[in-house]
Amino acid sequence: MYDDPPPIGPRVRCIPPGEDRERLQCPDCGYISYQNPLIVVGSVAVWEDRILLCRRAIPPRRGYWTLPAGFMEEHETSQAGAAREAWEEACARIEVGGLLAIYDIPRISQVQLIFRARLLTPDIAAGPESEEVGLFRWEDIPWRDIAFPTVHWSLREHHARLGQEVCVPAVNPTPEVAARWESML
Amino acid sequence: MYDDPPPIGPRVRCIPPGEDRERLQCPDCGYISYQNPLIVVGSVAVWEDRILLCRRAIPPRRGYWTLPAGFMEEHETSQAGAAREAWEEACARIEVGGLLAIYDIPRISQVQLIFRARLLTPDIAAGPESEEVGLFRWEDIPWRDIAFPTVHWSLREHHARLGQEVCVPAVNPTPEVAARWESML
Repeated sequence: MYDDPPPIGPRVRCIPPGEDRERLQCPDCGYISYQNPLIVVGSVAVWEDRILLCRRAIPPRRGYWTLPAGFMEEHETSQAGAAREAWEEACARIEVGGLLAIYDIPRISQVQLIFRARLLTPDIAAGPESEEVGLFRWEDIPWRDIAFPTVHWSLREHHARLGQEVCVPAVNPTPEVAARWESML
Repeated sequence: MYDDPPPIGPRVRCIPPGEDRERLQCPDCGYISYQNPLIVVGSVAVWEDRILLCRRAIPPRRGYWTLPAGFMEEHETSQAGAAREAWEEACARIEVGGLLAIYDIPRISQVQLIFRARLLTPDIAAGPESEEVGLFRWEDIPWRDIAFPTVHWSLREHHARLGQEVCVPAVNPTPEVAARWESML
């Protein structure tokens, strides 16, 4: 992924006529690229009392553990996207339930939709983007080797809702709560 | 908005190396465009027992009534985006609450996040994309002139949750429920 504008395609900042904010335009052909936030879809998928985690085989945070999650694709529903990611990253067949959490990450223009899910079988295997996959009991979760804060948050919110049939989705924790959770690692 | 690929920029379908699906590439410079679903953020914003609606001044569905909603922008949270849209479309200052509904529209690759909200003052005025704005009691909502199904759904889900402090967000109604609601117009 590029941090700087790529050397080809839309890369010159301009404010198009009638608009109020900068967009990127290709200086070669005039094409204007509308950058919008990206949707990440994922799940906390369980088999009995164990949670599916995947050790990342790709940057960022290679070698760290994450939930099966990734960018939503065109022409799929968010739940279908979460199921696709579990299949691609962990060869896991899951049934996707209600929304567990919705996280805004404006710094990188992401909205993460994390669903409750259950594995239809305990058969899992590392997909191309995973070094390893595993089913973890709560007390065995590798807390110090979690890839991203939202993974940590999602696991805690899942745990707090065990036994609840309907689920009011979590949102970003306050900075104080996030710091307290961080200090417990 | 283009229905066909635009005459400039990424417009040739190809499957990039290592990928499993088609993307659009610019034949002039090689730039590959990753098209992802777009997030629409909006709200059912109330003042006392009345709901804010906006009559669209732009296509699609010009002249029909909608909720204040639009495409989420980069580097904003979904709630901030919903507040921005209420300001842009209805000059309304709102306080955005919890998620009321999340709708998947895979045909057009949209995810709509509709929040509960309350107007901080009843002062509203049409923004550039609205012909007219209004505050409607439930029985006065112009049901036959609603712009989109998700507006209709959001209004019904809002009404069903009146008095509930916490809110389990609605998702797309089943086809049967959607048809029943449609028949009641």
